[in-house]
Amino acid sequence: MGNKKIEVTLGVEIGGTTTVFGLVDSSGKCYVEEKIQTRPHESPEFLFDQLFTKFGEIYNQVSDKYDMIGIGIGAPSANYYKGTIENSSNLNWKYVNVVELVKKYWDLPTVITNDANAAALGESKFGNARGMKNFIQITLGTGLGSGIFVDGNIVYGHDGFAGEIGHMTVEKNGRSCGCGRKGCLETYASTSGLVRTVLELLSLYNDDSVLHEIAPNELTSKLIYRAAINGDTIANMAFEATGQKLGEALANVVACFSPEAIILSEGVALAGDLIVRPTKHHMELNLLNLFKSKVDILLSGMPRGDVAILGASALIWHELMLEKDKKKLAMINN
Amino acid sequence: MGNKKIEVTLGVEIGGTTTVFGLVDSSGKCYVEEKIQTRPHESPEFLFDQLFTKFGEIYNQVSDKYDMIGIGIGAPSANYYKGTIENSSNLNWKYVNVVELVKKYWDLPTVITNDANAAALGESKFGNARGMKNFIQITLGTGLGSGIFVDGNIVYGHDGFAGEIGHMTVEKNGRSCGCGRKGCLETYASTSGLVRTVLELLSLYNDDSVLHEIAPNELTSKLIYRAAINGDTIANMAFEATGQKLGEALANVVACFSPEAIILSEGVALAGDLIVRPTKHHMELNLLNLFKSKVDILLSGMPRGDVAILGASALIWHELMLEKDKKKLAMINN
Repeated sequence: MGNKKIEVTLGVEIGGTTTVFGLVDSSGKCYVEEKIQTRPHESPEFLFDQLFTKFGEIYNQVSDKYDMIGIGIGAPSANYYKGTIENSSNLNWKYVNVVELVKKYWDLPTVITNDANAAALGESKFGNARGMKNFIQITLGTGLGSGIFVDGNIVYGHDGFAGEIGHMTVEKNGRSCGCGRKGCLETYASTSGLVRTVLELLSLYNDDSVLHEIAPNELTSKLIYRAAINGDTIANMAFEATGQKLGEALANVVACFSPEAIILSEGVALAGDLIVRPTKHHMELNLLNLFKSKVDILLSGMPRGDVAILGASALIWHELMLEKDKKKLAMINN
Repeated sequence: MGNKKIEVTLGVEIGGTTTVFGLVDSSGKCYVEEKIQTRPHESPEFLFDQLFTKFGEIYNQVSDKYDMIGIGIGAPSANYYKGTIENSSNLNWKYVNVVELVKKYWDLPTVITNDANAAALGESKFGNARGMKNFIQITLGTGLGSGIFVDGNIVYGHDGFAGEIGHMTVEKNGRSCGCGRKGCLETYASTSGLVRTVLELLSLYNDDSVLHEIAPNELTSKLIYRAAINGDTIANMAFEATGQKLGEALANVVACFSPEAIILSEGVALAGDLIVRPTKHHMELNLLNLFKSKVDILLSGMPRGDVAILGASALIWHELMLEKDKKKLAMINN
């Protein structure tokens, strides 16, 4: 008599250099965790061959304990509706139908979304947004990624590409953005934005700063953070200015969505209160009265290492839950 | 043997001076249409006594033909979740539970929402957004009202007050807004915003303009429209500038929601192409590449006179449809 198997999903996140994957149960416990190199210049088939060969070996050894019921994939420029990755700047693939490709290896429910939405789903299922139906997840990495929950589900919009808060224009004729336009929020509120803000402040003020000693291309948000907690004026001003730009933009975002909370994660968010305090302050300052003191700014509640796998896994757990509801509805309709 | 009765809902819109109501079937046909004075300084009980006395008399005469199955109410500062009107600037009521109040007169499913959401629901059920699951409705009246559809439903947010696009800050230290802040979109993109833009342009340029002859408090969007189609430079520049501000803001809104279309109605929108063209132009100019040429700017498809009643009626039709789905789900779950 065998024990009942534990239901798990496979979470996969495809990054520009590394692809991570793992088996996760519905409580967020991660049982298997592995990574392979992405090699973005090879074909997608090459990546998935490698991925499922490695995963297959692992799963063979544990399939008596775990029952895999779905696959969730987070990837840059992924389209949830179409199951594709399109024109990703991090991967060299023009157009790949990832969901179709995966089905050649495992015939299980498979969903893909971009990494920012996966992060929001992770926060919703396993992190600090548990129980929240309306919240916004902001990733302050090299760029600014965002995933938006409205009424318990991700906002995908008409074409699957909604949630580009990082590309809201916040400064007319502002900083050049990787997208080809100017003044996007992510040119200010991101790790690269923080570095640019330091350079701007060094150009404006005469204050002594340890940041004068570091070449711009070696400047990181971690170094700026260390300088700030050691009392460096410029570094502290940089966090203040970053929080101001982010807080002002979030006041506009709140006017649209009226979320319960905004969750900051990764990169600049690792500075904790140094970024949360000015962000909250400037958001409140700019909010319509109706929304004042109603919206929390929280830090991510996800365990650091597993974020990507948990997010991708949460995507398919969320989908399976929605599917269950839909099937029930279809049953009674027939 | 009687004929089968036609199912209708009662749509009520409470305005600052007039309250309109009517019976509407599921195709948008309006059978009975009446209005009473709102008298905002009297109690809400006074209004509903009057309303249901008048409506009761009418309904008695037609109840053999129509079967009323629900009541939808549109009102300023209405909260969908709580069924209330709270701190409305147009009505003198601090806090009224409208849904409870209505139940004293008619025990039918009753829902309330603000006028902007009611307009979006009207557009969705009876107007130019039929079949669209993701769109944004913008009313360019004295202020700028907005109702946002995501995945087939209104975005209410955590507290019921989402969708305040008119109070996104678009100009730091810009024009004073009725909300007490500065630079809100509605101080530029609205009938009052259009008038302010004319005054600003008259202060900046020496061009001849018929608008020099009109006292600011007599200047209306209709007069500016007439001047514009007669070739008045300042009037044409005013529509161009209004479209620019609106288009730039909508580019940011699209980044959040990725809607299929944005629908403009009332006030400034009655100028048709004079406002649609510059709005579309400046929105496209500022869109992230991903969204370019994907989002339509449309004019309202609602019959002019009935907009308010149809919107309020659409609210309850939409709700009854959602309820039906939920009940089916509950049935199978039990």
